[in-house]
Amino acid sequence: MRELTSDHISQQFNAELETLRQHFLTMGGVVENQVADAIQSMLESDGSLAEEVKDKDAMVNQLDGLIDEECTRILAKRQPAATDLRMILSIGKAVGELERIGDEAKKIARLTITLVEEGESPRGYVEINRIGQMVSRMVHDALDAYARLDVDAAVRVAKQDRNVDMEFKTAMRSLVTYMMEDPRSITRVINVIWVLRSLERIGDHAQHICQHLIYLVKGQDVRHVPVSQLSEKVSDKE
Amino acid sequence: MRELTSDHISQQFNAELETLRQHFLTMGGVVENQVADAIQSMLESDGSLAEEVKDKDAMVNQLDGLIDEECTRILAKRQPAATDLRMILSIGKAVGELERIGDEAKKIARLTITLVEEGESPRGYVEINRIGQMVSRMVHDALDAYARLDVDAAVRVAKQDRNVDMEFKTAMRSLVTYMMEDPRSITRVINVIWVLRSLERIGDHAQHICQHLIYLVKGQDVRHVPVSQLSEKVSDKE
Repeated sequence: MRELTSDHISQQFNAELETLRQHFLTMGGVVENQVADAIQSMLESDGSLAEEVKDKDAMVNQLDGLIDEECTRILAKRQPAATDLRMILSIGKAVGELERIGDEAKKIARLTITLVEEGESPRGYVEINRIGQMVSRMVHDALDAYARLDVDAAVRVAKQDRNVDMEFKTAMRSLVTYMMEDPRSITRVINVIWVLRSLERIGDHAQHICQHLIYLVKGQDVRHVPVSQLSEKVSDKE
Repeated sequence: MRELTSDHISQQFNAELETLRQHFLTMGGVVENQVADAIQSMLESDGSLAEEVKDKDAMVNQLDGLIDEECTRILAKRQPAATDLRMILSIGKAVGELERIGDEAKKIARLTITLVEEGESPRGYVEINRIGQMVSRMVHDALDAYARLDVDAAVRVAKQDRNVDMEFKTAMRSLVTYMMEDPRSITRVINVIWVLRSLERIGDHAQHICQHLIYLVKGQDVRHVPVSQLSEKVSDKE
């Protein structure tokens, strides 16, 4: 982050920003694992792995609270401006996205536990696997882009979200057809739909992390810029 | 807000905070209407009302960007501390919740338009009506509590969210039964399920606004405090 921070007299301030950034990336790592494990628990009907995902929620919440406090303390004590201020605000928002990703992973884990308890194997393995891979990758790449302050990578990840949305719609159509052909499967399939919905939301949050990174590096608020115009918009101010 | 702000030498600063607060409440009013109109458009199959809800999205996004810029500008220029800082951070987060509520209202409006185009009347009017009333009221009351800095009201609204979640689960059970009895209805019912899901999410966001208000007034981060412990937690620091 050093290359972005303005010249500080205070080495202490630099250290605080670096700690903040490290805590954010630590939380990112925990959440990334939660997502991967939640998907795996569902695909392998692994109830104990699902319990682990749920248990990690406490750690995620703790990191969320800690980082939020750090942001507030730095704002009050250091009164940062320019890039430093943007970094703190950007991390503050990106942490909110991570926390929501963790929540969605927890929802998936809960659904796994329900399915395992009922001794049922879900339909829609193929869809969960495919969309799960896509959004796991998005979360990973969004955090990687954040760690390297890589705007081009952030744009690429944000664009991926459209593919997730398309896959989600395709999956929905096939699941509806499946339910019509076998109405006894409806309850199970609805659970699969909730899993897919959570995955789709995780993709949205990964996209938002990329938007917060673009704000940090470029100072541009691109949250409401259509993805199709993102490359252009970002290169404008190169 | 004046009773909460610390003594400022600068009247200008007070005026800026008041403007920020007014913009937040203006955005709240727009979003509150979006929610009410989205529900009405669905219940009355009113496609043109649904189009209005969609069109308001641009205004919401504009207000979202404006308020975010104001927050950043005040942070950079005034370097606020204590309650002033909390107010800016709290509004910054509450605005994010409003923006998401607006997004959910837009999703409902889109589903209305789809249903109207297909000439279909949805099942689940009773459920949409009941849960719709509940969350509309929550959004209204959360904004009202925010305007009056009323922590007790905020706690009451936050507690409402459990009722919404219970109603949602009940509705889901009855819709699943309905689909099993009449598989031809599945496509339509799935759309109703998405509406209910959006309503349930709106309730979550209204609850979060209340949490951000409690942070503003009390300085406590209660986002991860279970609702059942909220009254106790908040009165601790009276």
